[in-house]
Amino acid sequence: MPNHVYKSIELTGSSETSIEDAVRTALDRAGKTIRNMRWFEVVETRGYMEDNKVAYWQVTVKIGFTVE
Amino acid sequence: MPNHVYKSIELTGSSETSIEDAVRTALDRAGKTIRNMRWFEVVETRGYMEDNKVAYWQVTVKIGFTVE
Amino acid sequence: MPNHVYKSIELTGSSETSIEDAVRTALDRAGKTIRNMRWFEVVETRGYMEDNKVAYWQVTVKIGFTVE
Amino acid sequence: MPNHVYKSIELTGSSETSIEDAVRTALDRAGKTIRNMRWFEVVETRGYMEDNKVAYWQVTVKIGFTVE
Amino acid sequence: MPNHVYKSIELTGSSETSIEDAVRTALDRAGKTIRNMRWFEVVETRGYMEDNKVAYWQVTVKIGFTVE
Amino acid sequence: MPNHVYKSIELTGSSETSIEDAVRTALDRAGKTIRNMRWFEVVETRGYMEDNKVAYWQVTVKIGFTVE
Amino acid sequence: MPNHVYKSIELTGSSETSIEDAVRTALDRAGKTIRNMRWFEVVETRGYMEDNKVAYWQVTVKIGFTVE
Amino acid sequence: MPNHVYKSIELTGSSETSIEDAVRTALDRAGKTIRNMRWFEVVETRGYMEDNKVAYWQVTVKIGFTVE
Amino acid sequence: MPNHVYKSIELTGSSETSIEDAVRTALDRAGKTIRNMRWFEVVETRGYMEDNKVAYWQVTVKIGFTVE
Amino acid sequence: MPNHVYKSIELTGSSETSIEDAVRTALDRAGKTIRNMRWFEVVETRGYMEDNKVAYWQVTVKIGFTVE
Amino acid sequence: MPNHVYKSIELTGSSETSIEDAVRTALDRAGKTIRNMRWFEVVETRGYMEDNKVAYWQVTVKIGFTVE
Amino acid sequence: MPNHVYKSIELTGSSETSIEDAVRTALDRAGKTIRNMRWFEVVETRGYMEDNKVAYWQVTVKIGFTVE
Repeated sequence: MPNHVYKSIELTGSSETSIEDAVRTALDRAGKTIRNMRWFEVVETRGYMEDNKVAYWQVTVKIGFTVE
Repeated sequence: MPNHVYKSIELTGSSETSIEDAVRTALDRAGKTIRNMRWFEVVETRGYMEDNKVAYWQVTVKIGFTVE
Repeated sequence: MPNHVYKSIELTGSSETSIEDAVRTALDRAGKTIRNMRWFEVVETRGYMEDNKVAYWQVTVKIGFTVE
Repeated sequence: MPNHVYKSIELTGSSETSIEDAVRTALDRAGKTIRNMRWFEVVETRGYMEDNKVAYWQVTVKIGFTVE
Repeated sequence: MPNHVYKSIELTGSSETSIEDAVRTALDRAGKTIRNMRWFEVVETRGYMEDNKVAYWQVTVKIGFTVE
Repeated sequence: MPNHVYKSIELTGSSETSIEDAVRTALDRAGKTIRNMRWFEVVETRGYMEDNKVAYWQVTVKIGFTVE
Repeated sequence: MPNHVYKSIELTGSSETSIEDAVRTALDRAGKTIRNMRWFEVVETRGYMEDNKVAYWQVTVKIGFTVE
Repeated sequence: MPNHVYKSIELTGSSETSIEDAVRTALDRAGKTIRNMRWFEVVETRGYMEDNKVAYWQVTVKIGFTVE
Repeated sequence: MPNHVYKSIELTGSSETSIEDAVRTALDRAGKTIRNMRWFEVVETRGYMEDNKVAYWQVTVKIGFTVE
Repeated sequence: MPNHVYKSIELTGSSETSIEDAVRTALDRAGKTIRNMRWFEVVETRGYMEDNKVAYWQVTVKIGFTVE
Repeated sequence: MPNHVYKSIELTGSSETSIEDAVRTALDRAGKTIRNMRWFEVVETRGYMEDNKVAYWQVTVKIGFTVE
Repeated sequence: MPNHVYKSIELTGSSETSIEDAVRTALDRAGKTIRNMRWFEVVETRGYMEDNKVAYWQVTVKIGFTVE
């Protein structure tokens, strides 16, 4: 790892069920164009409501990946 | 949305099972007196312990709603 | 409670399944040497990835306990 | 002023033209139910876009007023 | 406590004598309309001066109370 | 919106006239390569001076857009 | 620039019309005694109200200047 | 002092009378097992209420001491 | 007040007795060279210890005064 | 400079020898694909250990560059 | 790593020569009683002066280690 | 020390070689007009680049000194 350089980007994913699932939505999308994702950090946890109920969770993650 | 004014308040809900459920407890209580809740943001996630186990999760949310 | 003094320490636990479970991993380990844990606060929620999937959640908690 | 107690609330106003105007929108709405507003502080300045242009500015203010 | 929902509000109180007394001024005013106040947190400690002396301390507290 | 994933990037724009105009400069540049910008947040407001006058305002915005 | 040392000070200016104008008020005052001002950063944007209207904007800037 | 290494820990003390007294409660408890305490910093000032009055102040301090 | 420009500086005062007294020590010193001090804000509350007791409180304040 | 728009990205570089060298590792990698880098800011300084010694320093920088 | 629990503590080390050396002083002291140190994060970089020169650098690190 | 009052100011120094050297540049300049400097704290570490290399490090320090 000492020779690696990491880049981090910020994505926001959503889910109707849980915080973890909203994170996975963001990571899955990132994985379509990024290889070698190594870590993520949750930087914001929000949600949107309809009819006074949680419509979906919306979680922002900073994702770190190896730049080759 | 450009013509709306939002107010935000801070509530803390609890749950014996999960962070998401503690959020819903706070939102359900808010919904008894507030209409048109639009979004929330998790601002603090804590928990209380009894006999060295999690007794309940306690999550504070900032809730935004339309003022009419 | 007014006569108690609390100490707080910071531990990081992991889980392959959820944020709540990573917290419990940290609390279970703390409970092996600490009695009278009273509260915790989530201070950082991260995760590590392998093959572009979440390998495990890693959550840091500040734990408060009574010093006797 | 030393005998006054102030309460502060958080409102978000919008405007198609400027940050200052979005603040005024929030303050005007607050003034319908609150008397004796004394100060405000801008706590967040955001905007929403349509067709890659600013559709409206959205500014959150903390408003302090005298409670009698 | 696990079944309670708490709301928190922000008030600013003043005192010519001490930080603690300014907090009590805010809490006393809050107690006129709020029942079941449970905790507070000092979020800002300021003061105003006249003739280069402290005229009064001005302390902002976030107050948490049970919503029934 | 629940099915969307957003990415956010950070740009800094300048203007000789106003904070709002510096934001628009950054957004206009972003719009040359990014479609579907949805929101922005002002994260820093600075300025540079020449001959003790404001030469230009320099505003940093975090811009969120839909990744398809 | 690599040989320069900068000092930064904090001033608060006011204006009845706009945030930008309040900044200029602070910079103009600073310019009476400081030469070679190079940059500024907005650190707080507040306002004071009378009769439930904005009486004046009050903006605090950190100003950097070359010390010779 | 240049040859010393300091460790810092976090304790929370309580008092029915004042912020200073709550700090001393935490320091007194720390002094039972730690020698050579050198400094402390107040990191949080809270209080708990009963019957709408301050029941006790609760202050968290970070305490630095020489490790030998 | 709308026509005033304020400057703020940061001083640290000490006291063997209380937080309030340490603030006054800083303000008294500032008053020897500054006229028209208007407000202060407590930005850090620390203390130094000798023989495991509080030797003195050390409080840092940001002081605002009118520049004429 | 008033006509330029800057983009900033976040990279993490490593070094076995020093903080400055870890920064240069990140900047060198960035320079392979980015032209016109103008400034950087150190946002996090960490390190990893093996056999209780520093194995390598790991420094995260935000890098600003001109977008043309 | 997914099965490990980490504890983090905060130490401050000093050096007359460099920031990196002050960090190593803290880590060396920690290594006398802690095994399996894994990472550290620089949380504060200060220095003390004598005769208007740097007498020594003083760096605070948060150190994470595996609890077994 | 309990009888001293400290003032703190903010300076930014540069160096082509290291962070420590940029700090010394700021302290040396401060020492031309200030006596009795006691401590400093690094508050920002930046750098400027030319031809995609570090042209110079630019470090901002808060410097505390005794006011007599």
